[in-house]
Amino acid sequence: MADQVVLLDFLPSPFGMRLRIALAEKGVKYEYKEEDLANKSPLLLQSNPVHKKIPVLIHNGKPVSESLIALQYIDEVWNHKAPLFPSDPYLRSQARFWADFVDKKVVDFWLKVWTTKGEEQEAAKKGFLHSIKLLEGELGDKPYFGGETLGFVDVALVPFISWLSVYEKCGNFSVEEECPEFIAWGKRCLQKESVAKSLPDQDKVYDVVVQLRKKLGIE
Amino acid sequence: MADQVVLLDFLPSPFGMRLRIALAEKGVKYEYKEEDLANKSPLLLQSNPVHKKIPVLIHNGKPVSESLIALQYIDEVWNHKAPLFPSDPYLRSQARFWADFVDKKVVDFWLKVWTTKGEEQEAAKKGFLHSIKLLEGELGDKPYFGGETLGFVDVALVPFISWLSVYEKCGNFSVEEECPEFIAWGKRCLQKESVAKSLPDQDKVYDVVVQLRKKLGIE
Repeated sequence: MADQVVLLDFLPSPFGMRLRIALAEKGVKYEYKEEDLANKSPLLLQSNPVHKKIPVLIHNGKPVSESLIALQYIDEVWNHKAPLFPSDPYLRSQARFWADFVDKKVVDFWLKVWTTKGEEQEAAKKGFLHSIKLLEGELGDKPYFGGETLGFVDVALVPFISWLSVYEKCGNFSVEEECPEFIAWGKRCLQKESVAKSLPDQDKVYDVVVQLRKKLGIE
Repeated sequence: MADQVVLLDFLPSPFGMRLRIALAEKGVKYEYKEEDLANKSPLLLQSNPVHKKIPVLIHNGKPVSESLIALQYIDEVWNHKAPLFPSDPYLRSQARFWADFVDKKVVDFWLKVWTTKGEEQEAAKKGFLHSIKLLEGELGDKPYFGGETLGFVDVALVPFISWLSVYEKCGNFSVEEECPEFIAWGKRCLQKESVAKSLPDQDKVYDVVVQLRKKLGIE
């Protein structure tokens, strides 16, 4: 029986993009289902009853939630090509550390950059840039966080590149100016077909964010 | 060369207890270094410059931070006995999901139960019990979350059992009454020497918490 793979997702979600990239890297065919987050599908609520969030990867009827966990699942199941992790346990732990850093720090600031105003937004912008600079330090001279190939941290982080217009237009700051190494790395990642086809156009992301901010009463 | 293993820790820390249990399960000898969190050691600041938090596992000079990540590192390096994960990728993803749930939900409420007062504390107590009940549902009829043996979720969760006196005396609520299955599971875990010797006495934890609450101006 061929694998049945379904992805419950939402186009501008950086977390969904992670799974799209990994599935593309592995060459896994899947059915993409866009969710309306204001009116979540019964399938989403039933597949992720705890967090009720996208993305959810459903593999032969079995759901996996939380994007970093689903990434590891994808890497373990389709282990024939494009491994996301090195084989050395210490390097694996460091990849997990920095992907976890993205979720604990970058994500928190990223969310506040476009959902808050005033002082809170200013603090978020600072925190966001500081986190990205720490990641630039970790990248160093390597082409990718994974070394010569795309790894776990690359896949976890690169979706935030598709939000550059949002930072600029909603946050009035230029990540390009402050973090040129991050931008250069992002462009390198985007040369890969798996990344290019998984990240939506920046203007599309911005349009959705404008709508969300209206709903939240921010603009 | 024999492995050199150092653990930077703080006795009542549930996160430190996780690593103590895993190292005991694996039979790894290590040097325990208690940290003064009000005056962190240069070794801690240098080993975990990003988060500056305990626990840190230092293996042959290389530091691993963030307890769930260090647990996975321990499991991968000392893989000759007491595996924390099943071999099936789906079951592995589910163990990661529930351990992540402990960190995202249980930990958040646990912290507020003893660091807040009034309405905020009441909400935290409700959230804590709700999270534990969800975990009871996941445990079901199994002796451990790992099935017949102690697994990743067991090691991640069982340290919170040593805080029962704190919940009762600082939060004025009885986890025993509300979540009997959780308590029965905790007692089962404590029958294992690896767990029993890694969890401090409840009164000792309570004494430290009383001091911390005084510093925070809660009592």
